[in-house]
Amino acid sequence: MISRKMIGMTKNGSAIRAMFEEGKKMAEKFGAENVYDFSLGNPNIPAPEKVRQEIIDIARETDPMELHGYMSNAGYPQVRKAVAQSLNRRFGTSFSENNIIMTVGAAGGLNVILKTLLDPGDEVLVFSPYFLEYGNYVANFDGILKAVPALPEDGFQPSGKALSEAITPKTKALILNNPNNPTGVIYPEDKIRELADVLEEKQRELGTSIYIISDEPYRELAYDGAQVPYITKYYRNTIVGYSWSKSLSLPGERIGYLAIPDEADDSQLIIDAAVIANRILGFVNAPSLQQRLVAECLEEKTDVDAYDRNRKALYNGLTDCGFECVYPSGAFYLWVKAPDGDDGKFVTKAKEHNILFVGGASFACPGYVRIAYCVSNDMINRSMPAFKALAVEYGLNK
Amino acid sequence: MISRKMIGMTKNGSAIRAMFEEGKKMAEKFGAENVYDFSLGNPNIPAPEKVRQEIIDIARETDPMELHGYMSNAGYPQVRKAVAQSLNRRFGTSFSENNIIMTVGAAGGLNVILKTLLDPGDEVLVFSPYFLEYGNYVANFDGILKAVPALPEDGFQPSGKALSEAITPKTKALILNNPNNPTGVIYPEDKIRELADVLEEKQRELGTSIYIISDEPYRELAYDGAQVPYITKYYRNTIVGYSWSKSLSLPGERIGYLAIPDEADDSQLIIDAAVIANRILGFVNAPSLQQRLVAECLEEKTDVDAYDRNRKALYNGLTDCGFECVYPSGAFYLWVKAPDGDDGKFVTKAKEHNILFVGGASFACPGYVRIAYCVSNDMINRSMPAFKALAVEYGLNK
Repeated sequence: MISRKMIGMTKNGSAIRAMFEEGKKMAEKFGAENVYDFSLGNPNIPAPEKVRQEIIDIARETDPMELHGYMSNAGYPQVRKAVAQSLNRRFGTSFSENNIIMTVGAAGGLNVILKTLLDPGDEVLVFSPYFLEYGNYVANFDGILKAVPALPEDGFQPSGKALSEAITPKTKALILNNPNNPTGVIYPEDKIRELADVLEEKQRELGTSIYIISDEPYRELAYDGAQVPYITKYYRNTIVGYSWSKSLSLPGERIGYLAIPDEADDSQLIIDAAVIANRILGFVNAPSLQQRLVAECLEEKTDVDAYDRNRKALYNGLTDCGFECVYPSGAFYLWVKAPDGDDGKFVTKAKEHNILFVGGASFACPGYVRIAYCVSNDMINRSMPAFKALAVEYGLNK
Repeated sequence: MISRKMIGMTKNGSAIRAMFEEGKKMAEKFGAENVYDFSLGNPNIPAPEKVRQEIIDIARETDPMELHGYMSNAGYPQVRKAVAQSLNRRFGTSFSENNIIMTVGAAGGLNVILKTLLDPGDEVLVFSPYFLEYGNYVANFDGILKAVPALPEDGFQPSGKALSEAITPKTKALILNNPNNPTGVIYPEDKIRELADVLEEKQRELGTSIYIISDEPYRELAYDGAQVPYITKYYRNTIVGYSWSKSLSLPGERIGYLAIPDEADDSQLIIDAAVIANRILGFVNAPSLQQRLVAECLEEKTDVDAYDRNRKALYNGLTDCGFECVYPSGAFYLWVKAPDGDDGKFVTKAKEHNILFVGGASFACPGYVRIAYCVSNDMINRSMPAFKALAVEYGLNK
């Protein structure tokens, strides 16, 4: 009776729910403190105290008609201006409020820009491993997502050559997720230049516009002083999607933006269409109170040092056990090789030690698993004996 | 370069923006107090004071991880339970939290349920005049919106016979908007029974399920003691879409719900699929702070009396001028006949008197105009000489 597309999805959905239920049952059976759940990318650092205070101040001082009323579908002009100025200060860009559209999180923003750009059959590229939800977003508009593997032997850095070979006349966009979920890798400046050169060349060759959609929810989570290049400065057909879900620990509030620079081909047309897409997809506008909140918190930061402590504890702990891990430079994920290459088996065996993490098949990259370290440092320490036992079972580091 | 669908929309979008700009220019030229803008359905009654206080209390007392974190894509269980219980108390329904999905406003909810139900080419019926955005929502999923005229000679009440004739084997849903935007009409209990009988008969005849999607943002805005039937009690294949935009004056916050009763065909499948649709359309979940807020304000009401005063002032004033108006029982719109049947000309002539309202062509019903009375009572009074002059121009009530 329901949409045929959705029938398939409810089957997959149930499989994921079954996994959650299993975690809950394990916590009941063994005690929550004896179950080590590394499966979810839900920030464990609370929002900065300023967030609480600003919500109270905004509610107290703002006329409710202005605070909760409709505004332009693009968002409050003063909020968009504040966001533009903050980006210009930090990254040397030259955005005005016209370039910024406030969105219902990055997920909302990605759907808005894909609705804006895609005709049925258009191709969108992404480097694998990748957040599988991109496939659903592209399919919402009858586009075709094509994965371009970033290989283990390249440290999961994308390859300009592989990108070049994947581009066709139907390629409309490349989704770039930097810092990367699930690998924790950051693409450095020279890599971005390499990719930009390929795209420029292909645009000339094909006479098309190919947009980078830069999905940047992890931008602020970079370690060891790593720089995350601001893509618009390297490639003019770049559209940035951002969310405060991770940087201010506000994932439930659904607040983000799209930045569409003047330099992009058909920039004003894209901006106008994206504002309409924001409306007709049913978002209408980003939540009004949250818009005002983030405008007051643009200089606030989450506790990156806490994630960094987790990163080191987990990376060092697992490496000591003999597991092969990609050294993470950003985000809050550790990407670990399944010792015998079978990630499904690795997930199953780990569960027997009360450890929960996600298999690489969920990121279009079998053979690896994602361990999310947005958890308490204490849980990481408590989990180490279980990881050691798991390693012994695989015959590692005996 | 952008999507072909969106190119057409940016052209229309610009036409609407041009109208807004004109209103702004008029205010600059003649003074804001001499321009009578009845074009927008933006509540002019501030949110109840309890809204302000609850936001402050919630921010002060709730753990930020719980307040701003991810929850189930369906929303917080305790919020959904509170909504279900409030509906059960008021309408004698028997919802549990399982039947309620919190959404990004009613617009989000409508897109979620249409994504859930529609295959390409499926037909969705709506009585005209109607909110044109429905057409965009249905087109998002390649459905076909078919208007069934509700006629002036029936007081813009829908006709069971016309509904019956419009139903085909491809009919998946009927969108019902009660109280109605733009006519202000309320469909009473006997009309709902008539429509339900037609749908039941057609379901039997065709062997299909036809869902009523009841879009109810104006439910609480009913005057003269009018009752707004709760549709699930008359027709079991009913899905309710609600928003607090009007009832708590929170349109910018994007908070609403879908109610999917157990009695509906494939109820659990629809619920499961709608939760997934909420995620993959990019909403992910309804804004978390707003979910908690509305759960605390379920018994709060906007100042319906203020809208009622506006309703009477405008209806009586315009009728006295000689304009033919539909007596509004609900919502905050007055539906007025263009004196010579040309609504475009009526809009243009009104502008010459600094009066702004929306032509019926924007609601798929030429020959009428919509005058929104969610404005200050003072503006209505000040506008009366201008309406009188407009009436004189049309040779009315000389």
